[in-house]
Amino acid sequence: MTTEPPLRADAQRNRERILAAARELFREQGTAVALDDIARRAGVGAGTLYRRFPDRDALVRQVIVDGFEICLAAVEGARAEPADPAVALERLFLRVLEQRERLVLPLIGGPVVREPRIQELQHAIRDTVEDILVRARSAGVVRDDITPEDLITAAAMVCRPMPHLPDEMSAALAARHVAVYLHGLRPEGARPLPAAAPAPGDFGRHVAMDAEQRSR
Amino acid sequence: MTTEPPLRADAQRNRERILAAARELFREQGTAVALDDIARRAGVGAGTLYRRFPDRDALVRQVIVDGFEICLAAVEGARAEPADPAVALERLFLRVLEQRERLVLPLIGGPVVREPRIQELQHAIRDTVEDILVRARSAGVVRDDITPEDLITAAAMVCRPMPHLPDEMSAALAARHVAVYLHGLRPEGARPLPAAAPAPGDFGRHVAMDAEQRSR
Repeated sequence: MTTEPPLRADAQRNRERILAAARELFREQGTAVALDDIARRAGVGAGTLYRRFPDRDALVRQVIVDGFEICLAAVEGARAEPADPAVALERLFLRVLEQRERLVLPLIGGPVVREPRIQELQHAIRDTVEDILVRARSAGVVRDDITPEDLITAAAMVCRPMPHLPDEMSAALAARHVAVYLHGLRPEGARPLPAAAPAPGDFGRHVAMDAEQRSR
Repeated sequence: MTTEPPLRADAQRNRERILAAARELFREQGTAVALDDIARRAGVGAGTLYRRFPDRDALVRQVIVDGFEICLAAVEGARAEPADPAVALERLFLRVLEQRERLVLPLIGGPVVREPRIQELQHAIRDTVEDILVRARSAGVVRDDITPEDLITAAAMVCRPMPHLPDEMSAALAARHVAVYLHGLRPEGARPLPAAAPAPGDFGRHVAMDAEQRSR
């Protein structure tokens, strides 16, 4: 979308409102929700919505790209922390959790969309998480057998909406869960994990990353 | 359902097949799925289904009661373990994870159903988890600030289907996550948790337990 001409301020505002409404409704009701309902929730006319997003796929794709961009910014921000790598890991989860209401992603109930921009974002996220893990492992603050796929699925688990619970309660429970999980990543007294981690390519094939490119 | 006369063997078999099909379809598509689709998946006629379950609510209720009964058996089995209370906690998660495909429960995407049998099962599950925690805390193997609500939501998180991933991969990732989480429950080096736990009554009100009875 970066090659498009910049939008006027009101058009930009409408676009943001449509995307925010789409994120909410996709999370509440799934991506099959009627586009007219999205326009209504956004407070814009159906014509305005269709001018920006000609069909559901375009809207779903944009919401998913936005979600991966949020995650990439969060993990890159965590990697840039000059602190203890254990703190970087903590920041990674905190930053993603803060944005959880905005995430519509394959592992959080969204559809898998295969397109180059999305695969690029997924690869960049995985590589950044791997960088943080490598640093944390060599500092001796994280057990050796944890993979980026473990952290990615852990983040997905805690970011999924908890059905029926009010947002504040579910955010508190998620933050408590993350604190316990992070403490559990420490190597002291760790016993072998009960199952093998999926290979990155094997995992990636199901969530859209191109398996051929990620077979290591 | 225990007051009904026993069913003939073939009727019992049909009932089990209907319930298994309902569990599968509820987990895949939500509880709004058409009853005819459930009959088709079960390989029984629509008439057979309606004879056992006059409407969707009856079927949903039974699947949810079954789910809570599975959980209660799992936590009671774990409590009965004569071993180290840390092992009891581990068994608790393992036993629930083993049955994850059969769980349709409020925190795993099912609806909240308010009825005495369900509230009774929820209370019994919470009390049993509390017993295990009390023993684990006094043995010094679990930090003091973990509540049954933490463990119940942790179990719900790892039992929810992971979208798009094959069952075997998602089971391996869930088992790895649980092992890390359990290790993180140990009190050694624990820092204060970042948010307060919800009060049992406050939590219970949203998932169906009667808040008045559980205000402590």
